[in-house]
Amino acid sequence: MNVTLYIATSLDGYIAGPDDDLSWLFTDADYGYSEFYRQVDALIMGRGTYEVVTKMGDWPYAGKHVVVVSRAQEVTITTSETEFHSSSLSALLQQLREKGYLKVWLVGGGDLVRSFLNESLVSHIQVSLHPILLGKGVPLFPGGFPRTLLQFEGAEAYESGLVQLSYSVPAEARVPVTTSA
Amino acid sequence: MNVTLYIATSLDGYIAGPDDDLSWLFTDADYGYSEFYRQVDALIMGRGTYEVVTKMGDWPYAGKHVVVVSRAQEVTITTSETEFHSSSLSALLQQLREKGYLKVWLVGGGDLVRSFLNESLVSHIQVSLHPILLGKGVPLFPGGFPRTLLQFEGAEAYESGLVQLSYSVPAEARVPVTTSA
Repeated sequence: MNVTLYIATSLDGYIAGPDDDLSWLFTDADYGYSEFYRQVDALIMGRGTYEVVTKMGDWPYAGKHVVVVSRAQEVTITTSETEFHSSSLSALLQQLREKGYLKVWLVGGGDLVRSFLNESLVSHIQVSLHPILLGKGVPLFPGGFPRTLLQFEGAEAYESGLVQLSYSVPAEARVPVTTSA
Repeated sequence: MNVTLYIATSLDGYIAGPDDDLSWLFTDADYGYSEFYRQVDALIMGRGTYEVVTKMGDWPYAGKHVVVVSRAQEVTITTSETEFHSSSLSALLQQLREKGYLKVWLVGGGDLVRSFLNESLVSHIQVSLHPILLGKGVPLFPGGFPRTLLQFEGAEAYESGLVQLSYSVPAEARVPVTTSA
């Protein structure tokens, strides 16, 4: 099962500026997003990310299965094909796998990324590194997870200065997700 | 005047693990360091970095002019060609320039980097991004400085998975350093 953290960050590691500011993100080109998105079966995101996305206007993930995760707080689901999940993350991946969702996009944010890393459930990391220092904001990696060696898979630099970095997490550092059947 | 922040970090933005752990840094190859170091006229580092380096054994910067900066605390200098500086950073750069030191390596650590960014005194950033998540440690960019747009200069990926990223800070975002004469 493929669980890819695919996310844009500033050089100083923020996924959003203060007040969830995303105005610094490059929107001039696709940067491989469409190709990535086409291959994804299901999306997993935290409560905060869900709230930011739904506030932005039209739901951009129509037609994909989406899971909103929060262990602390109930979330009101207002979008199609979206389920709420509040228990174990590995159980969630088992369920997705059993439903045939084999390529999962871990959308964010930082707290959910930490939980996934803590449970060694991330298989791939693709970071769209923007040429900017934000100075403050919402960190991609808030810390508090075990040291994880990565396998570098490639880097692609675009003319705008965005660098797409791809890593995989070696299998021995991951929890295998198999069907319970 | 060229002030380059040249530093190694983990993908999650740490320059050292807990207890100043540097054991994760790649030492199998030079990664362009010798060429960079050869061109440097002077080094600037914070008190903490100086203490870590001097504890590690032989002073690796013999033959270069080194400035140890601390505004809060006196530092005992035990190495050759090393001066202590405790006042303004822009005044320090003026002094270095007047002495003919035109290419400066800003070694770190995070607090000094923040001060330099706060005063718009960094002209170049070269980051040796290691394929590892540390989960905790000493952050390269502890935050608390203004948003800074960067100009991407290039990326070089090595077989080990280290990616060298180069940026310049556009002149309009910097404080010009000129001689007072």
